[in-house]
This record gives sequence, C-alpha cells and structure tokens, in this order.
Amino acid sequence: MTQQGNRCLLCGSALARDTEPRVCQECEKRHQIVFELDPLAGHEDIIPGKLYAGRVKRVHDIGYFIALNPGVVGLLRKRDARGEHAPGEEVVVKVARVRGDRVDLLPWESDGDYTLVPLRKHIPLWKIGRISVNELGSAVRIRGIVAKVQRTSGPTVFTVYDETGAIECTAFASGERAYPGIDRSDVVEVRGEVVFRLDRLQVEVRHMEKLYGAEQRAVREEIDREIDRKAEPLRPEPLVRDPVLEALYPGMLELAKQLRRAVLTGVPVFIRHHADADGFIAGVAIERALLPLMRTSSPDREAEWHLFKRLPSRAPFYEMEDVVRDLQYSLEDAERFGTPMPLVLVVDNGSTAEDLPAMRKLRVYGARIMVVDHHYPGEVRDGRALVDEVAEIHVNPYLAGGDYSLTAGCLGVEIARMVNPEAGERMSHLPGIACVADRVKGETPERYIRIAEERGYTRERMEVIAECIDYEAFHLRFMDGRGVIEDLLGLGRLDRQAELIEIIWEEARRAREVQLRAALENLRRAELANGLLLCTIDLEKYTHRFSYPPAGKTTGMVHDAVASERGGERTVTIGYGPDFAVLRATEDVGRRYRMNLNTLVAELAEELPGAGVTGGGHEVAGSIKFVEGYRRQVLERLAEKLARLEA
Amino acid sequence: MTQQGNRCLLCGSALARDTEPRVCQECEKRHQIVFELDPLAGHEDIIPGKLYAGRVKRVHDIGYFIALNPGVVGLLRKRDARGEHAPGEEVVVKVARVRGDRVDLLPWESDGDYTLVPLRKHIPLWKIGRISVNELGSAVRIRGIVAKVQRTSGPTVFTVYDETGAIECTAFASGERAYPGIDRSDVVEVRGEVVFRLDRLQVEVRHMEKLYGAEQRAVREEIDREIDRKAEPLRPEPLVRDPVLEALYPGMLELAKQLRRAVLTGVPVFIRHHADADGFIAGVAIERALLPLMRTSSPDREAEWHLFKRLPSRAPFYEMEDVVRDLQYSLEDAERFGTPMPLVLVVDNGSTAEDLPAMRKLRVYGARIMVVDHHYPGEVRDGRALVDEVAEIHVNPYLAGGDYSLTAGCLGVEIARMVNPEAGERMSHLPGIACVADRVKGETPERYIRIAEERGYTRERMEVIAECIDYEAFHLRFMDGRGVIEDLLGLGRLDRQAELIEIIWEEARRAREVQLRAALENLRRAELANGLLLCTIDLEKYTHRFSYPPAGKTTGMVHDAVASERGGERTVTIGYGPDFAVLRATEDVGRRYRMNLNTLVAELAEELPGAGVTGGGHEVAGSIKFVEGYRRQVLERLAEKLARLEA
Amino acid sequence: MTQQGNRCLLCGSALARDTEPRVCQECEKRHQIVFELDPLAGHEDIIPGKLYAGRVKRVHDIGYFIALNPGVVGLLRKRDARGEHAPGEEVVVKVARVRGDRVDLLPWESDGDYTLVPLRKHIPLWKIGRISVNELGSAVRIRGIVAKVQRTSGPTVFTVYDETGAIECTAFASGERAYPGIDRSDVVEVRGEVVFRLDRLQVEVRHMEKLYGAEQRAVREEIDREIDRKAEPLRPEPLVRDPVLEALYPGMLELAKQLRRAVLTGVPVFIRHHADADGFIAGVAIERALLPLMRTSSPDREAEWHLFKRLPSRAPFYEMEDVVRDLQYSLEDAERFGTPMPLVLVVDNGSTAEDLPAMRKLRVYGARIMVVDHHYPGEVRDGRALVDEVAEIHVNPYLAGGDYSLTAGCLGVEIARMVNPEAGERMSHLPGIACVADRVKGETPERYIRIAEERGYTRERMEVIAECIDYEAFHLRFMDGRGVIEDLLGLGRLDRQAELIEIIWEEARRAREVQLRAALENLRRAELANGLLLCTIDLEKYTHRFSYPPAGKTTGMVHDAVASERGGERTVTIGYGPDFAVLRATEDVGRRYRMNLNTLVAELAEELPGAGVTGGGHEVAGSIKFVEGYRRQVLERLAEKLARLEA
Repeated sequence: MTQQGNRCLLCGSALARDTEPRVCQECEKRHQIVFELDPLAGHEDIIPGKLYAGRVKRVHDIGYFIALNPGVVGLLRKRDARGEHAPGEEVVVKVARVRGDRVDLLPWESDGDYTLVPLRKHIPLWKIGRISVNELGSAVRIRGIVAKVQRTSGPTVFTVYDETGAIECTAFASGERAYPGIDRSDVVEVRGEVVFRLDRLQVEVRHMEKLYGAEQRAVREEIDREIDRKAEPLRPEPLVRDPVLEALYPGMLELAKQLRRAVLTGVPVFIRHHADADGFIAGVAIERALLPLMRTSSPDREAEWHLFKRLPSRAPFYEMEDVVRDLQYSLEDAERFGTPMPLVLVVDNGSTAEDLPAMRKLRVYGARIMVVDHHYPGEVRDGRALVDEVAEIHVNPYLAGGDYSLTAGCLGVEIARMVNPEAGERMSHLPGIACVADRVKGETPERYIRIAEERGYTRERMEVIAECIDYEAFHLRFMDGRGVIEDLLGLGRLDRQAELIEIIWEEARRAREVQLRAALENLRRAELANGLLLCTIDLEKYTHRFSYPPAGKTTGMVHDAVASERGGERTVTIGYGPDFAVLRATEDVGRRYRMNLNTLVAELAEELPGAGVTGGGHEVAGSIKFVEGYRRQVLERLAEKLARLEA
Repeated sequence: MTQQGNRCLLCGSALARDTEPRVCQECEKRHQIVFELDPLAGHEDIIPGKLYAGRVKRVHDIGYFIALNPGVVGLLRKRDARGEHAPGEEVVVKVARVRGDRVDLLPWESDGDYTLVPLRKHIPLWKIGRISVNELGSAVRIRGIVAKVQRTSGPTVFTVYDETGAIECTAFASGERAYPGIDRSDVVEVRGEVVFRLDRLQVEVRHMEKLYGAEQRAVREEIDREIDRKAEPLRPEPLVRDPVLEALYPGMLELAKQLRRAVLTGVPVFIRHHADADGFIAGVAIERALLPLMRTSSPDREAEWHLFKRLPSRAPFYEMEDVVRDLQYSLEDAERFGTPMPLVLVVDNGSTAEDLPAMRKLRVYGARIMVVDHHYPGEVRDGRALVDEVAEIHVNPYLAGGDYSLTAGCLGVEIARMVNPEAGERMSHLPGIACVADRVKGETPERYIRIAEERGYTRERMEVIAECIDYEAFHLRFMDGRGVIEDLLGLGRLDRQAELIEIIWEEARRAREVQLRAALENLRRAELANGLLLCTIDLEKYTHRFSYPPAGKTTGMVHDAVASERGGERTVTIGYGPDFAVLRATEDVGRRYRMNLNTLVAELAEELPGAGVTGGGHEVAGSIKFVEGYRRQVLERLAEKLARLEA
Repeated sequence: MTQQGNRCLLCGSALARDTEPRVCQECEKRHQIVFELDPLAGHEDIIPGKLYAGRVKRVHDIGYFIALNPGVVGLLRKRDARGEHAPGEEVVVKVARVRGDRVDLLPWESDGDYTLVPLRKHIPLWKIGRISVNELGSAVRIRGIVAKVQRTSGPTVFTVYDETGAIECTAFASGERAYPGIDRSDVVEVRGEVVFRLDRLQVEVRHMEKLYGAEQRAVREEIDREIDRKAEPLRPEPLVRDPVLEALYPGMLELAKQLRRAVLTGVPVFIRHHADADGFIAGVAIERALLPLMRTSSPDREAEWHLFKRLPSRAPFYEMEDVVRDLQYSLEDAERFGTPMPLVLVVDNGSTAEDLPAMRKLRVYGARIMVVDHHYPGEVRDGRALVDEVAEIHVNPYLAGGDYSLTAGCLGVEIARMVNPEAGERMSHLPGIACVADRVKGETPERYIRIAEERGYTRERMEVIAECIDYEAFHLRFMDGRGVIEDLLGLGRLDRQAELIEIIWEEARRAREVQLRAALENLRRAELANGLLLCTIDLEKYTHRFSYPPAGKTTGMVHDAVASERGGERTVTIGYGPDFAVLRATEDVGRRYRMNLNTLVAELAEELPGAGVTGGGHEVAGSIKFVEGYRRQVLERLAEKLARLEA
C-alpha cells in the first residue's frame, strides 16, 4: 500500500509514468470516481475538474467552506450550492479552480453511486536522525521500531526509533489510546507532518501502520544490525594484566554491550550498589560512562533524568525494601509513561543467596538483571553460581577462580572503559582507591594502586578519600550523592575535590576518633591459652549510636588498632550490640588457626536453636545476628570456640 | 449581553432581522458611530464603509498596519494617512475595502466625538464534550462550572465543565491572575477560540463572564442534574445475603455515588487504608473501580495521577503523621494547581476515637471524610458513633447491629461493584480472601469464602495470598504497592500472580519460620489454677527486631501454634516488648472465662497510674501500651488477673 | 554589528539616509552582490531586482520553492529555472516581483563569483518587561543578563533579564547545547521573534551574541543599578526600641537586601530553621515576605515552587543529614535546569560550631550562606564569631552585646518587615509568640509580648499557639507545614486559626498530660545538703517513646511543675535516656549557685574519658550526650557536682 508504482489504483493496468491521480482512462469512464485527498496533500496536489470527498467546516453568508483534508479548504458559494449543508456534513464536490491557497468548488451535479478512491501522496522515506527544524511543516514518512507508547492528556505518543535516531509521533484519537493495535517493539511505518510541539520536533501522525512479514523483518533487521554495531563496546586493554580479569573479560564485554544497547533503545538502566567506597566507585564509574551516551544517543533526550537511576543499597545486599521501591517506581513509569521495565545492574552486591529474592521479584516483572560483584557467591559449579538463575550476566572473580581481592570498583571501572572509552580515561585512579578502601591484598590490587599513585594519589590520600566516601554514604542514606561523590573521586573539579576532602575528612576523622576513643577505653581484652588475643566491645554501651562510624567500621578500626600492637597477628575482635556481633580476626587466625567465621556461625545456629543465629562473611571477617535474649550465650560459645582453636 | 436579538444596540428599537451591525438608521444618523470589532470576528464580519477602532501594530514604509482585533489587520497607506502614527497608538479608521485577507483602510476624516459600539459576534453555544480537533481555530461559546483555577507561568487556566465534559480555558493577563472575580465552582460563560496547546485542546478565552441569577441557576441545575444522573451508582445484588449488609446498603450506595460525583467533578479522592490484607483488599477494590472512571470522565485527563492517591496507614488508625502528610500535599496542590480539597475515604480504619483528631484536622481544611470500617466504633447511639461528628458517611457493621466479621474487604468490594460494575465483576473472590486474612468466622464470611472457592481459590491459597500481602505491606511501608498488590490479588496477569506468590510466599514462610522457631523455643508456659495455659514471650529478646513478621503477627502465630495443641481452648498468649504487650486468647476464654481485654486495660490503667497504660482491641485480642519502667508490674498484674478468671 | 548607521556595508562610505539595502552604488557596480536576508526579515524587506541567497525547500511540478529565510519562500518556476535543483541545495536567485506573500523568483543568469552581503534588519531595542502578547510574531531585540541556561529535550533555553523583567530565549542547535560560549551571568544581545510556547511568551532566538567591553559594562551597570535600587529594602522603624536591635539593624538591612536581590535575579532561596515555635516563626515570617515578591518579580514566574524552600532542621543545628539533602537537590537543579546555587538562610540555628561543617560544605559548592540566630555563637572577637568564616551575613544578638532573649522570631519578623513591608504588617504579633515560646525574659521580650496582646492575643493564647506549633513540628518531621503553620500563627484565615488551635491544642494537651503524669509519678527527688532539690526521671522507662512531647520538652514540663512548688527556686531536674540527659535548673541556681552546664560537661568529659561526653547549652539548661555504658557514672558524678555547689 505504501509502495508507489505506475499502475491504475482500481484495475491495476499499467499507466504512463506521470498519470496523476493514478486511475486509467478506462476506469475513469467506467466508474464515477470521487477522490479522497491524502491528509498530507496540499493545494498543489489538487487537480481541477475532478471530484473530491469533503466535509463542511464552516457555513458562512458567502457559502460553505469545505475541507478536503485538514489542510485544504475550498469554498462552495451559496449561489452555486445545490441545497443547504450543515457543518460536519460530508459532501462530494468538484474542484473548479485552484489559485494559490484558494480553491473554488462546485457541487457535484449528480446523486448517484460513486467509487471512492483514496489517494496516497508519495512522501519520501526519511531516516529519523535526518529530520531537523528544516522539515517543520513538511510531510515525512519513517519506518522504525516503537520504543514506548505513552497516553497523555492529549494525543497518544509513540516514540519510534530507527538506526539513526528517535522521534515522538503523536496521534489523536479523542480520549482513546490511538492505534490500540500498535505496541512497544512493533515495527511501524508512520506518515505525518513534522511539527514543533512542547519543546521538540515531533511527527504528527496522519497514518501509521504496523508492518508484517518480510517488510517487518527487513526493517527490524536493518535497525537491529545497525544498533548492534553501535552497541559494540570498545575492547580496551585492561588497566592491569590478571588471569581472572582475562577470564571475566568476555562477560564484561557482553555486559558493556547490553548497557549500550539499553541506552540506544530507550530501556531504563538502574544501578543498585553497595553503600561503601568500593560500591560507590563501581556504580559511579559505570554511571559516568553511560550518561554521555544517554545525552547523545537515547530515544529520550532527557534520558539522563528519566531513564537512569543509581542508588546505594543500605544493606550489604539487594534487599526487599530496595526492590519494593524499585518496582513501585518502574511499574508507575511503565503505566504512566509507557517506559519499558529497566535493566537492573547490581554492583558490589547481587552475588549471594540474600540477593536472590529481590532479584527474583524483579524478574517476574520482566526486568533484566545483571550483576558485578566480588562477594563470595556460594558454591560455583561449571562457572555458575546460585544467582545465575536470575542474573543474565554475572561478573564475579569467584566464577573464574579468583577471589574478593578483585574488587567491584576494579571491575566497574574496567566495564566503564568498555562502555565509553573517553569517559574511562579519567577513571584509571579509581580502582586503586577501591582496593585501598576494601583493604584487599595481592599483586593485582597493588598494580591498580600503583596506577593511582602514578596519577598523583598517595596511598594515604586514597585512604582519606575512601573514608570520606564512607562518611558521605553514611549520611546520604537513600540518596545517590551525585555531584559530591564524583567530586570526592576527582571526576569533577579538582579544586573542589581538595576543598571537599579537607572539610569532610576533618569531620570524619573527628567522628571516628570520638567513637574509637570511647571504644578502646572500654575494650575488654582476654589472652587465650592458644595465644590469641580476644577483644570484645559492647558497641551499644560504649559507642555513640546512630553516629558515624557505624558498628562494622568501628569494630574494624578497633581491631586494626589492637592488632597493630601485636604485629597484625593472633588478634580477634568482636564488637557486639543487642542482637548482632561483628567479628574481625587477623589473617593468620584464618591461615594458621583455621578459623572460619562461616563454620562458627553454622555451629552456633545448630547448638543454640532458639537463638536465631544467622550471618557469615569471609573466613576472618563478617557478622552474626541472633535474637537479643541469647546474646550472652552466643558470645560465650563463640569465645569458647575461639579458645579451642589450635595453631 | 450574550443574548442576540434584533434590536438596535443603542436605542433598543426593533430592527429588521438581518441588519448588521445592529444599529438603527436613526442612531447612525444621530451619533458618529465607531465600531469595536469582537475579538473573535474575522474578515468576513467587517462591513466596508463603516468606522472601526484600531491600534497601530506596525509602521512600515508603505503605511500603517492597524489591528482591528488580534486577528484582523488592515493597511492604512501613508499617502492616505492624516499625519503620523506611532506603534501602539489607538486610531479610528474607515474600512475602504475587504478582499480576502486584505483590508484597506482610510483615515477617519473627523476628530470629533464618537460613540463606540462594541460588536459581539454571534457564536453558537457548544456543549464542551462536542468540541474536537475539528473545531481547531474556530470560535466557540460554552457555559459551565469552574472546576479549578490554576495560575501558571503564562495564562490563568480555568478548567470548566458541563454535563458533557471539561475543557481548559486559558486567559492572559500579563503577570496577573486573570479574571480575579471568577473562582472555583462559579458558573461562567466563556467565548474563545479553540486552540491546541501543550498537548491538548483548550479554549483561548476572549471573553469570560460569571453568570448570575436565573441564568446561573439554570446552567448549574442542568449540569448538576446530569452529573447526578451520571453519578448514580448501579444497584447490584450484594454477593451474599446478609441482614447487616442490607441495612448498610443505602449508606454504601450513597458513598459510591459521592465517589463517582467526585470523579466527575474533578475532586481528588484519597484512600487511606489499614496496611493489612483486609485493608489493602478494600482499598484496592475501590481504587480499581474508580480508575477506569477517572480515565474517561474526569475533567482532568490525567486524573489517575493528579487526583487519586491510595496509601496504607502504618498505624492501625488514621494517625497524625498521616494527616500531616496528606494536608501538606493537598494544600500544596490547592495553592499551586488550584485543585479542590480531596474527598478522603478511610478504609479498614477511621471508626475509632483514635482516628478522630486526624480527621478533625482534615475537616478544618474543607476535606470531605468518609469511612468504611469494621472495627468497634465505641458506643453506638441511634445508629451513630463518635466519629460521625466528622465522617459524612460512615459504613460500619456495628452501626447496624453487626460486628467485626463483616470485614472492610467485603464492604469495599461491595462498594466497588456499585461504583463500577464492570471492574467489580473480576473482584468477587476478594472478600473471601479478606475474611480468611482477618480470620473471621460466621455464615456471611463462609459464603464469601465459598464464592472465592468457586472461582478456584482454595482456602489454603487464600491464606497464602493474605500472608503474601502482609509480607509486602511490611516492606512497602509508606508506598501503595500499586501493581504488585493487584497482581497478588489476581486482578492483574494471572501468570504473574502465580509466579509472584511462589516467590513471596517462599520468603514470607522462611521469615515467619525463623521468627516462630525462636519464639517457640523461648516461650514460657504457665498452667494456671483455673485451667488456662498462659504463654508469654519476650519479643524483643527472642525475635528478630525490624524483621517480618512484626510483633502482633508473631504473637498470633505463636498463640495459634500453642492453642492448637490444646484443641484451640483455654490458652492465653502474651507477646511483649519494652513498652507494649500483645494479647491473644482462645475464643472460649472470652466466652466462658468472660475475659475482656478492654476491661483489663482499664483496670491496669487505674491500678498503676504511673504506668501510662493504654490500649485495647477485641475481647480476646488486642494490645497494651505502657511506659517501659512498669513492664514488670503490668505483666505481673495482668497474669494475676488472668489467674483470677473463673470459667 | 548591531549598530545601525548610514554607511555602505562594504566600503563604509556615507549613504543617503534611506538607502536600502545599505550598499553604495559604487560597490554595487564593483561587486556582484548577493544579499543574505536577515532571518527576521519579512516580505516587505525584499527588494525586487536584487539577488538573494536561498535554499531549495520543496520541489514541485510547478517549480522550486526557495526559502530566502525561514519565513520568506519564493517560487522559481521550472520553466524559468536553469537546470534542476535538489531539496536542500543552496542557490542564488533574483527577485522578480513581490505581491503580498507571493515572491516570484528568477534564476541568477551567471555562475561567477559574488560577494555575499548579510542584511541585518533594523529591530528596535525592547525592555524585556514591555514585551507582551501584542508582540506575538514580532521581531524584538533585547539586552540583558543570562540568569540561567537550561538544556531541554528541544532547544537550549536562556533566561535573560534586564531591569524590567525576564524572558526565556529559546535557541535550537540540533541536539547540542546552543551557543556554548554563552553562560550564566553573561551579558547578551538577543534578536528574535516573540512566540508563545508551552504556556508562556518566549523569544525564539535568531541571533544571540555576548557583549564585551564598554558595551557589556554599560548594560550590566544599568541593570545592576536598577536591580540594586529595586532590591533596596524599606527601613521600617523596628517594632520595639532596643539597643542590640539597633546595633544589628545594618546587618539585617543588608540581609533583607540580599534576599530581595536573590529574588530579582532568580537565585533560589533556601530557609533552614530550627523545628520549634521560635524557628518556625522566624522562617515563616521571612517566607511570607519573600513569596509575594517572587510571584511578581522573579525571572521564573513559578519561582515560588522552583526557587524557594523552607525546611525545618530536626536537630538543633544545621546538620550533615540536612546539607546532604540540600546539596543533592541543589546540584540536581543546577545540572538539570541550570538553576544557580541557592542563597541558604539558616534561622534560629547556624551560629554554633556544630553548624559549621554543613555550612562549609555548602560553601564549597558556591552557595551563599547567611545566618539569623540567637544561640550563643562561642567567643566573639571584634564582633565576629566562629561561623563568620562561612556566613556572609550573621545576625546574632551576642555579636552586639545582647543575648538569647532577642529571639530568632523577633529578628525574623523585623527582617521580614524590611523585605516586604506590606506582608510585614500582619506579623507584628509573631515576635511576642516567639518570646513566649522560648520563655525569654526582659524588657524587649515584654514589649514584643505587649504588641501581641494589643493585637488580641493573651499570654495564655500565645502559650497555646506555641505549644500547637511544637506539636505540629513534632509530627511534620521533614515537611515544612506550609499552610497549617501560617494558619496557626494567624497569618491565614482567622476562623481556621481558631478551629485548628482548638483541635490541635486538645491533642497536644492530652499527649503532654499523659507524658507528664507518667513522668511525675516516677520522679525521684533528692534534697541536697546545699538546699537544692534534685529531681531525676528515667525518660526511657517512664515516658512513652516516640510520642509527643519529646525528651527535652518533657523534662522542661516536669521541671516547671516541680520548681513551681518551690517558688521557682533551688530546683534542678535531669531527664535521662540511655545515652543522653537533659538538664534544667531554676535561674537562681545559675545566679546564686554559679552552676554552669557547659563547665559541668567539660569536667565530666575530662574525668570520664571513655564516656564520650559531649553537649552543652545555656548555663542552666541544655543536654549531655554520653555512651550508654557510662550512664550510671555520668549521672552519679553529675549529682555529686551539683551537691558540691554552694550558694
């Protein structure tokens, strides 16, 4: 129907090339032909002497103004008219004359049957990206994929994209959803006029149809191929050489590609990350890589605000509270604005069994889930872990024989560099900070740290930055800290970084010293027979509650302070509150004493069935939860177990 | 003024029917008449040879372009002009000729006095609902009621409705509120041009006036009558026969009507409901009935988002925190967007003295308040309860001799079916779930449950759904859970319901088992001399705080588990925290031992004046609050009192 | 370039005054001249017979439609054309004839070189405030300062203001930020067409340039001078005569001026105030003075919603949580809407060391900070205190030899009267309420109270209002309470004030009585040897937690009740929780016993290093924080110290 040819519209017989309208002389004779003007036709398309269908628009003293389409109105003088016409009445008229914008009409002298022949004006096919203000008021024809369908208080708005760009196509249907048969991800052909409305170019739809079969396939494939090509990430050399990183490389590349594809096709991206320095670094790095892409290449030109979110998770996993909130907003956006369900990227979280329920729930609603994490994902079989049930892509060093020391910040920056090499260039110092923040040891972390040092960050400065981010994160709670975190990380104005660090560091240091002093003063130390020093501190009683630093970090600080007195060896520190305990031990306690926190937790849970013991972490660091009434028992048992360890 | 007649505008003498402009020959002779063109007049309305008032719009080499109204501009050639004119100057001109859009002007040859005669173009009266894109650019006249007045950064926007629909009428007044004399709920006549702006049809006001007296009354009555007719709810047969339901029927019908009226007249509807399964069911049922109506019949075509809210109340009553928030938003909407104060529907809450302060406060601000509840409303006199002071409609089984067993979910669904029978059809299984959730017994609940069973829900499935909603509600906190709750209830996609239930149920069950195990393990049991088994559990010590299920539900679970060991008899369970206790007893304790929690609370409050004892509930279930320092005394006294009960 | 003269555009030689286009005959002969039409030129500006540069817009059977600028299109008939032209092709044409809107073109008969002469249409310079709907479609030229630059999904929007007003100027640059060289606070000249878009008048930019040097200076100075003049506050007589107030007067005046300037130049104003009655009064008074100004004089006509915020701070200082939130929103507004960083006014807070970190952080981001407070600002040297490091203006009675008794509410109202005398008139009763609320004594407070009494408020009524605000503030949490607070203060409808007070007062009184009864019942009283009565109450144990009134207020109530039994003398009350204590003493304890809370805190901190003791306040009122484990020790030591005081 949208194809142009030189055949008679009625009988299909061949026509001379220029015949307009395309009806052969035979047919013209045989039928009483009345033309229906294309809604996009102009005065120049009207052929005097022919009959046209019209609709009375206004009645005036002088005569009837009759619309042949929304843009072409002619005058049928009262003295010429056959009888009276009412506004809205449909009539057949003969075009007498066309002079400029003026169309003189005559009545159709007959009342007999006629054959209505719709004329389709030939409109050139446009690539969406080429439509500019120069085309304002012009008719265009486009073919593309529907990215989103939004019912507004006025028209239904179809956002259509092809491989060159996207445009909103507005269709009116008096209070109804227009073109109910056309939905997101359909391939369509739109004919319409370029208009400027609200604050952007749109196509006002005159005709839209869904394409099928070969035609549909061809359009979709062309767009897909081109978008795939555009989505292809760069393959930068990783910042450091590391076999685990190498093994993870293809998955990271695929993740980068899926992120780029999401941007190009208008799919929202949500980043949910752990609320510590490593998590912020990973999340912010990917954010900074994606945003410039969104600004230039999303079908939604305000994608940065509509289709992107990065949020810290307060718990050390993607918890129910988070997903409830994420779903609430995604479903509202879907219902209200026609936005697709998001691609959710869980960062520095997401690998453990605790993340699973939230991710499962997202999955029910069609969100795609990807994970970049360096926490232990439970048993790995054939390179797959528990959460691979729902995670489409799962990047985790444990899946490739690595461990915690390849932090999320490292992975995030490497992925960011694939997503957007330009943005990636400014980030090479971030993995080093992440490694320092997470206190990981090893060759690869050291290499990352060295890169940061080469970029002018001393190890001490990195520690300061990491602590500043922890301090900010503590106060940000559910906010993303956009702006401030970037500045702290040196991704913004560098003068501001220096000033900010100075101010925040002063506060953070003062706050931690207050906590540390109170804690150390009240620390109980017990030399165990096996040579271990067991330090315990009642955090509820001897630290300020709801103040920075929180329990886990405070315990870590106390532990570091005590352990350093013993050369960083044979020290275990337990900070406890009413229903939890945080445990830190020096590395040798794991290595030589074979302490394993996870084993301890399992034993306690079994031995004290009423205590509701849960928890875990690394071998020598983690936390335990229990019901308040069993605190004494849990702690006593724990101490006994530690006393029984042998080097 | 808006009436047309055939009388001279100056002297009132009769005129021939067609005389235009309507000035008699006598007057034309007597006065030097200068016409003022109607702002809506076009070129076709200008009569050559007459004098018109105009304003110099542009000065050009060729002459002065003079606007006779915003749309009609004529040319006074310099060679014809008498002297110079400055832009903005007001002048009197004579129309020499009108050819198409071209108006040739001549100067007025005199400087004398003249009589300015404003011409009002006759414009047909339109019903608002009939104005469509076909009228773009046309002049219309409408009469209706002002639904809302909004000052924007540009024009003042008056939303005007009649019985057929609503439209925004925009009026400009350079930085001021236009037509300050016209306000919400006034009856007005608007003359203006149909334009397409932002993304919708509007009337650009050329003239608006408030109607008075008989005219006003006639318009208002016609609209009112028609809206009343449209607001009339259906009178569906209730899903079950029940005398209490029958007695409540008229009030429910009136409530349904008021909800429909609110939608039709652009009044916001807020639903505030209890955050448990019964409350969610009641709230969601009414929401689902209202939304389709809003989409088609509200003066605000995005009413669903602007004029509707459903929110759970975390407390088991409409509390101060809630009303503070609701007022904040309502008052801002009123000030910023001219939105009327809402109709607030309190559901599964609202009947008790605790609800009163919040509702009173709303009332001060003109919000209308209606209540659908099944909690004991205090003493009922002449079918009226305490909160009827502020509740315009109060539906509660206790007001009709019924009790708690006719749950809010049942009432809500029955009302939803009156509001919107079509939406109501899919909800007949909901009351059953509500009855199971609230564990109510009796014939009517059983009938509702049977309906759900007929629709394929086993009793077990209903329990599961109820628990899933409790679990969601716990995590939703202040969010409404739109989307997910509907899916859980089987009002959305059924495949999604199944998947969701599976995921959430697994989590909910695991969570409750953790709580239950810890609680049971630490339960203290005391066989009292009177045959009662008194179980007590320190919830703070022996359950996980801030975890699902919360205190009340945990106590209930423990109680059910213990009571079932004794055939559901002679069991009292008290779960307590630092400053509260939850009490559950088997039914026979109320019946045979005549235990009444409310009496116990009253006694404790009297005996321990410093303990700040408050609380209450049903006879055999409820909660007690006290100050932490008296916990031991309160619990001991309570145990003593229970021990003294006699069967 | 924007200057008009009568010189040849090419050689500069003098021309006859009317020569158009401005090229001398010599040049016309010497060069083959092709004109480039100004984008704002109309048909009337085209001179037949001249050559113009154009661009093929559409190709039609009849010929080529060629645009000479976006608004002027002529027809080059195919029969006249030399060869074929493609859409978009740039061509040189000769204008044959201009008849009305119709421009007939002929081809340029040569292919040789030519000189392109851009024609700049003379457009009159407009003051922004004079542009109205009458100018719709007209070309205007304006000069002003850029207030804000916003990238939208369509054009880049430059808000430009001069001394008469502001207007949005929209510039298109296909996906890019238009005029990247022009930024906020630049002086520009804009030439464009007045259009109506979204819902307001805008200038569609045809040409915009940054002004430099003398021109720039002249424009800026004129605007600055005029805005300065407009920003000049009134100099009302203070409501009461007081030497401290007199000394503070110039600073307050400057503050009022800076607030007015911020409004006039589109700088957001954030008010952060203490969440008690005094703080609310001060904040609301200034808000009520600013808002009317914003409605009429801000470059953003919805400034009230976009550029203003008033928020209570829950802590008694501007804390980290607050600034984190304020920064998050300010930075987002800056990035998303181009809004400048705000002027932050900290009220009834802001003077102490605890406020400093938050304010420092704001400062890094360029926010201006001003403080109105009456809390002790630490040591004052040369009239300057610690926070003057960051506070641009700091109004505090202590800086002028005054004290706490000149409350923030008094200062706020006096400033509000300078900002907006009209709004100020209705506020003269507010300082009295603030004085009563803060229980300050002295001549000046008494005078303020007398003014309120003259306006019909009894002292008792003022106490009631103060308590109602405290009650509201407790429930408002992070909300501003706009609407309700004004009504309580009698700034809204007075009937509503009465109703509201009745409802809230009933609730507040009931709540405080519950707390008070429980507290008094459990109060421990110890007669010390030195004649002091020491009352202590465990607030956690003997009051309802999370209920109104909170700890500090409850302690105060208890103290007042007990002290009144002893004639308001020799009484000290300590209300304590797990990790804090609130202390109140009768005035004579400070005067005669020389008790100073700040000294006590310092001693405790030193004597109990592990206890983390911090806190302070006035001499006889304030709070102490400590770690929970040291509560007993802290309280015992405190009691000992009190026992050792001697009269």
